[in-house]
Formats: sequence, C-alpha cells, structure tokens
Amino acid sequence: MKTFNIQAPDEALRPLIQEKIDNLNKPKGSLGRLETLAMQVCLAQQTLTPSLAHPCHLLLGGDHGIEREGVSVSPREVTWQQMINFTKGGGGVNMFCRQHGFHLRIVDVGVDHDLSQVPDILNCKISLGTRNFLHEPAMTEEECTRAFTVGIDLVDATHTEGSRLLSIGEMGIANTSPSSIWMSLFCHIPLSECIGAGAGLNAQGIGHKQAILQQALAHFEEQYPNAPTTDVIRYFGGFEMVAAIGAMLRAAELKMLILVDGFIMTACALAACQLYPEAQAYMIFGHCGDESGHRRMLDALHVEPLLSLGLRLGEGTGALCAFPIVDSAVRMMNEMNNFHNAQITKYF
Amino acid sequence: MKTFNIQAPDEALRPLIQEKIDNLNKPKGSLGRLETLAMQVCLAQQTLTPSLAHPCHLLLGGDHGIEREGVSVSPREVTWQQMINFTKGGGGVNMFCRQHGFHLRIVDVGVDHDLSQVPDILNCKISLGTRNFLHEPAMTEEECTRAFTVGIDLVDATHTEGSRLLSIGEMGIANTSPSSIWMSLFCHIPLSECIGAGAGLNAQGIGHKQAILQQALAHFEEQYPNAPTTDVIRYFGGFEMVAAIGAMLRAAELKMLILVDGFIMTACALAACQLYPEAQAYMIFGHCGDESGHRRMLDALHVEPLLSLGLRLGEGTGALCAFPIVDSAVRMMNEMNNFHNAQITKYF
Repeated sequence: MKTFNIQAPDEALRPLIQEKIDNLNKPKGSLGRLETLAMQVCLAQQTLTPSLAHPCHLLLGGDHGIEREGVSVSPREVTWQQMINFTKGGGGVNMFCRQHGFHLRIVDVGVDHDLSQVPDILNCKISLGTRNFLHEPAMTEEECTRAFTVGIDLVDATHTEGSRLLSIGEMGIANTSPSSIWMSLFCHIPLSECIGAGAGLNAQGIGHKQAILQQALAHFEEQYPNAPTTDVIRYFGGFEMVAAIGAMLRAAELKMLILVDGFIMTACALAACQLYPEAQAYMIFGHCGDESGHRRMLDALHVEPLLSLGLRLGEGTGALCAFPIVDSAVRMMNEMNNFHNAQITKYF
Repeated sequence: MKTFNIQAPDEALRPLIQEKIDNLNKPKGSLGRLETLAMQVCLAQQTLTPSLAHPCHLLLGGDHGIEREGVSVSPREVTWQQMINFTKGGGGVNMFCRQHGFHLRIVDVGVDHDLSQVPDILNCKISLGTRNFLHEPAMTEEECTRAFTVGIDLVDATHTEGSRLLSIGEMGIANTSPSSIWMSLFCHIPLSECIGAGAGLNAQGIGHKQAILQQALAHFEEQYPNAPTTDVIRYFGGFEMVAAIGAMLRAAELKMLILVDGFIMTACALAACQLYPEAQAYMIFGHCGDESGHRRMLDALHVEPLLSLGLRLGEGTGALCAFPIVDSAVRMMNEMNNFHNAQITKYF
C-alpha cells in the first residue's frame, strides 16, 4: 500500500493566529467554537487568511458481500438505484451540495450493477461489490490497493482544480457492518457495543446483525491473531470505504481540510488515523449521528462534532450540513474588523 | 399595551406534511432534526412547500441604567461604538448576515448617544438609555408601549417586503442583567442560578453583579408583590429588549418564523410566551450559548436549540449561524425527490 508523507501543521504560527483572533472586535473568546475552528483551519493552511475555495464532495458508492446475510434493512439494489438518483439531483446529498456550493463527484468504486453508461457517474469500479467477510476477506490485497488509489487519484484531481476542502460521503447498503467491526477492533470496544440499527433495523434485526458480525469477527481473529491495521481494513472494508481512507490520507498529505461525516466516514477516519495519526489535524468532524457507537468513536478520537442533528442518512449529509459553520469561522478571520480599525474601546 | 391575535398553527395539515416527509427518498426519519424542523416550518406556514424568502435580521440597540452599577465587563460607550461599527460591515452580525443572505436593519431603540446622523441606523430612539432599576423602574409605561411599538412597526415593514423569517439580535452593554432577572421571575429559579459572566466577568465581578441584582429584585418585589408580566418587563427591561418582544409577538401574529438567539433573546422569547404562549410555535431556537442559565431557560420552554457552539457575542450571531439548518429543512421539503419519482425500492 502506498505510503504518505503527512505532516502535522507547524505550530509556530499559533501565537500569531491567536493574536489576530483576540483582536477581532468582540469579547475575547466570545465566538466560542468558531474560534477554535478558525485556529485549526489557519494552522492546517498555515495562514492568517484561510480559504475554503472550491469545496468538493466525493460521493463514493460500493456494495458489500455481507449484505447477503441480511444485516441491513434495505436490499442491495438500493445502492445502484440511489447512485442513479444522485445524478438526477434528487438525493439528500444533492440538495446540500447545491445549498453550500460543493462540486459533487459521484463515483462508482464497487457497486453491484453496471453504471458505466450513466452520465455523471465516474467509473472507478474495482468489482461488483466485495466478497462476504463472513467466509473470506472482503477484498484481495490487489483490490484493496486499487480502491485506495481511487481515493488518492480523486483527491489529486480536486486539488488540481483548486479545492482546499474535501467532504466525503458514502452509498453502500450494509456498510455500517464493516464500520462496526473496525470500530470494535480499533477502539478496543466489545463488538456488541458497536452495533446499531443502521438505516432502521428493529431489535430482532439488530440481534441477527450482531450474531453474524460476531461470527465473522471470531473467524477473522482465529485466522489473523494481532492483525495489522491494513489487514483489518482489507478483510472487512467496502471498496468505497477503502477509497475514502485513501482520499483522507492524500488530502492530509496535501494539507487539505477534510470534513468528516457520520458513523461510516468516522470509521474510515479512525482507520486513516490508525495508519497516520498526523492526519487528524486536517479533519473537521461535522456531525454526531444517531447510530449507536458514533459518539464513542468520536470520543476515542477526542473530538467534538460541530452538529448533533440526529441524521442517519449517510451520503455525507451530516458533513455538508456542518459546512456553513466552518465557513463562518473562516469569514470571522477574513471579514471581521479588529478593535484598532473599528475604533472601539477594547473589552477588558 | 397592544393586544395580539396569535393563533397556534392549524394541526389539520400535520398528517399530509408527515406523509410527504415519509415519502422522500431516504430511510424514514433518517434526516432527524431536519424532519421535525420541516414539520414546524410547514405547520407555521400552513403549506407543503415552505419558503424562507427575504430573511431579515433586526439588530436592536439600547443602553441600560443598571450599567452604572458596574455589572458588566464593558463600559456603556461600547454600545454606540459597536452600533456605528455595524454600519461599516465589520461586526460579527454583519458577516453572518452576508453569509446567509439576511437583510440587516440596525435600529437605535435607546442608545445613550446621538446616532441620528449615522447613515444606516434607523432612529427609533425612546431615550438615552433606560433608568437604573436598582432604584426605579427602567422605563415608564408610556416608554414601554413605545418600545413595544417600535418592534411591531419594524416587523410590519419587513413583512410588507415579503420576509417570512425574522431573526433578532441585540446590542446593549449590561443586558444580561435584566435577562437574568426575567429568567428568575418567569422560570421561578433563584436569581443566583440565573446569573453568569456576561461578556466576560471574573468571579469577583459576578459576585458584585449578583449582589446588585439581588438588591434590585428585593426592592421590586417589596413594591410590586405578585407583579404581572407586563410590570416585570417594564421594570427591568431594556428598550431593545421590549422592542424585541413586540417584534416577536407581531411576527407570530403574522405567522412569520422567528429565529431566536442566545441568552438575552431567549429571555425576550420567554417574556413573549408568558404573554402569548401560542407564539412559541413560530419560534426556532438557534443556539445554546455559554451564559450559565441559558440551557435552563431553554429547558423551561421545552426546546432543544439547533446549535451549541459556545457563542456569547450576542448581536443575534447564534441565530444567524443556525439559519442554514432551517434552510436545509426547507430544501428537503422542496427539492428532495420522493420514492415514486426516483424509482427506488422503498426502504422498509
């Protein structure tokens, strides 16, 4: 798997950024979270005048072999149907991209349907869905590397176009299942505490999902005791999830900001940070979703998401809804007057 | 004081709105808070295709006699200095109005400075600040009615221009003091639990503020046992706060949505709902601020704010930052495809 040269932001600029924030015409600290967010953005971009130019949203689609075990409320054909729907502008992700001025790239990384003739879907298909990790690894090493590279190449393209902020969403029926297993293995939390309702399972459905995933995990741990992160990723991951990890790491390498969505994308962020802890400095966590376990994953990363609106749609919608908060923080740095210019008695 | 004909939204439309929400192409309930927000907006506007056309932000300024007692960290001249700064576009409120397309009206309701020659400040001055409620009522009945009318007239003007959503912010050094007293009296919470740091008091400052306010409250309660809401409003309120109450009630009468900001505007919303409980159906609470007590006021109203970003700047900035969430809810109703049109297998 490709290696990355990811560097934590140079802290030398911190005092200058803080001085600028403290001299804006407002009581010190009174813009709360916007101020800490502005600090993160300025450090990541190494500037006092940050920019969110050309924000881009990657919508990555892929199917999952584990779906065959009935672990999700929706059938797998919803993946390709929704992918097509996104090209028509009627999905959740579409309206929020329009609202916040994101360029949307819809990418087939491994959907179980021929989408090659659909306009506006980038064809980066690895195969027609992953294998069923109840019985075997979801993908081969070669497939994993290719999926990883899909993410890298997508980020290179958006970066070339001038994008400074990347948001990622996913479409893949059953992808809370691999996410729960990653969470369990990376956070050392018992699997039963990492499993939730997904898009709407009832108690019986959750029980079945838990039994299946427990079996898959036991099988894996038998075969691969003390497996390295890359094996965990490959054995359980979806193609769209592995592409997301590649995209996050390449974006961090390029010092782009990464807006992280809900349960699945947080699991990918967690995997990315297992490989390269420095990447986290470039990540902004947009939303704490409803999927049980998401909050604990965020806690494990020691982050507080910007929003908590109970969304559980996926597609990156939670990240997109958080974008205007990041934009507000950036505007604060670029547009707000300071005490000197405004000729205002400096508060205390 | 003028009376209002405020009617709670007709509930007959609720099942139709719910049906539309449930048929959008997403798992049922998966847009969480956006769905309940969409319900509120649709009910308030009595439509399945809501609109947030021409959002307007009223920035109401006024000074407070109680400031003379040293209850605030900033001196009163900051009020007029900031009012002028807002006309130049460099304040917190300005950047967020620009970001979210709000028409900003800057209104002098009672600032202790002659602003009549400043372009872009509407001159609705009642007087040069309120009286000191440590010793006497902040305003006369006639002044209170006039301040109330300022708010009503402002809303009439914005409504005539086609605005469907009103946001209100305040600029008035020391206005957390009357807010704390209103909170204590309206929520029946001991005053000491209603007092916070304002724009940045230290522990000693908070102690002094508490002693002054306690004295003022004791004096009031001696003179006016079992005072009606209108007396509580008049005795402690700022001109900008009374104008805000008038604006909220008139907006509710006109079935306009009201985006409520932080501690001070929530205190005004609380006062408005004491007078007309039906008004609350038109209020969307944008932000839970840092001022201790704000959360308890929101709890007393049984509302959950959209954001919790630790802002304590005032000016309506918390409400403005929450606007895109409301916009997302409205776009969901107007732009999202439904299962039938999208030809997607309906999730469960």
